[in-house]
Amino acid sequence: MTRFALTLEFDGTPFFGLQRQKDGPSVQQSVEEAAFRVLGEEVRLHSAGRTDTGVHALAMRSHIDIAKDIAPFRLMEALNAHLRPEPIAVTRCEVVPDDWHARFSCVGRSYVYRIANRRAPLTLDKNRLWQVPQELDHAAMHEAAQALVGCHDFTTFRSVHCQADSPVKTLDRLDVEREGEEVRVHAAARSFLHHQVRSMVGCLALVGMGRWPIERMAEALAARDRQELGLNAPPHGLYFVAASYPADG
Amino acid sequence: MTRFALTLEFDGTPFFGLQRQKDGPSVQQSVEEAAFRVLGEEVRLHSAGRTDTGVHALAMRSHIDIAKDIAPFRLMEALNAHLRPEPIAVTRCEVVPDDWHARFSCVGRSYVYRIANRRAPLTLDKNRLWQVPQELDHAAMHEAAQALVGCHDFTTFRSVHCQADSPVKTLDRLDVEREGEEVRVHAAARSFLHHQVRSMVGCLALVGMGRWPIERMAEALAARDRQELGLNAPPHGLYFVAASYPADG
Repeated sequence: MTRFALTLEFDGTPFFGLQRQKDGPSVQQSVEEAAFRVLGEEVRLHSAGRTDTGVHALAMRSHIDIAKDIAPFRLMEALNAHLRPEPIAVTRCEVVPDDWHARFSCVGRSYVYRIANRRAPLTLDKNRLWQVPQELDHAAMHEAAQALVGCHDFTTFRSVHCQADSPVKTLDRLDVEREGEEVRVHAAARSFLHHQVRSMVGCLALVGMGRWPIERMAEALAARDRQELGLNAPPHGLYFVAASYPADG
Repeated sequence: MTRFALTLEFDGTPFFGLQRQKDGPSVQQSVEEAAFRVLGEEVRLHSAGRTDTGVHALAMRSHIDIAKDIAPFRLMEALNAHLRPEPIAVTRCEVVPDDWHARFSCVGRSYVYRIANRRAPLTLDKNRLWQVPQELDHAAMHEAAQALVGCHDFTTFRSVHCQADSPVKTLDRLDVEREGEEVRVHAAARSFLHHQVRSMVGCLALVGMGRWPIERMAEALAARDRQELGLNAPPHGLYFVAASYPADG
């Protein structure tokens, strides 16, 4: 068996998330079925992160084990051909050691959350950004975000369905920047709780609208209580951007 | 009657172009119908440019004349509410003098053409960029483009269906730049012939692929012969970016 690392880009709109679901289409199912058509083998796709319905990926790292002898470039081209017309693309494919695991070897994950801060409905960016009509104070959002950086109990920002053993995570980065009418939130950590990024962004948006004072973010974190969550941002503004591994240098 | 200038953003994918068509949906028809629902008046939308099926607009300038007394902000909000769920948005609305005409007063039009220069199929950017898998030499494309800048007979780059009186136009700008895997072509002129931008971009792509030497662009222009056209780029990479007017300062 040879292990291939795949970098996946996908539009999450038509999927019930990355991981296989009983009740609807998933990125995992599409890739595994494309691989079966290419190779005649049942493969299992493992990925660095799990994503919810509607969440996108620019560079999700995944792997599959294959018995058949095939060159990485040919595998990538064949998978892309068999994935059409679904909005999933393999943008990179390489052979990795057998002990490299897309999920368990991953030591860093980063996301970007994109907000369209405008009154007009979205057209070209529909399902790509969260539209927030109230003017957002991105500097206040950035300041509030810094209270979350570091090692904390993120219970407030955790879905009730989260399966992680512990609510304690170390958030390495939470930066808010504006470019024209777009406000972007960049988040990086070794790993995240379920809904953590969307929950943090939702509360940051309340700060940006002036509905929460900046200090309330630290108070919400300290409360360690899901009831303190102000708002969960919708999934379609969220992008999985990158996964990092020890060998990445 | 009061004349309102509207700035329109739209995703051209589901439309048979901006202008009203007998045989399919158009941006003009959608806006006029939304205005009728808002105002109870039949209005006629006039726009700075005509766009083909699949071509997008970031800021198309248009105008309508309205008998009813309504504030610009309220008109914009009501039009946007009634345009849903169609991918058309009014991003700006203002009262203009009766002799201001979105099409006839316009003295400058600019477009951007977006190319995704990559092998992998597009996912999030499907119908937003033209995917070109062969590596493009954007510096060669930019150099070739300069042969087209200035006042020329653009017959080679003109659709056989073009209704303009003359094939002579002054091209003010044709710049090619790369940002990562995206190659963008910026075009500006007082006005363009039908298919002119797409035809110029198609030939520039041939230069970028190395299938045309740089000099061939000037030769194709000088031939003044549609048969010399190498390639017409597809509509979905094209965006109408801006229209300018004498009073714009």
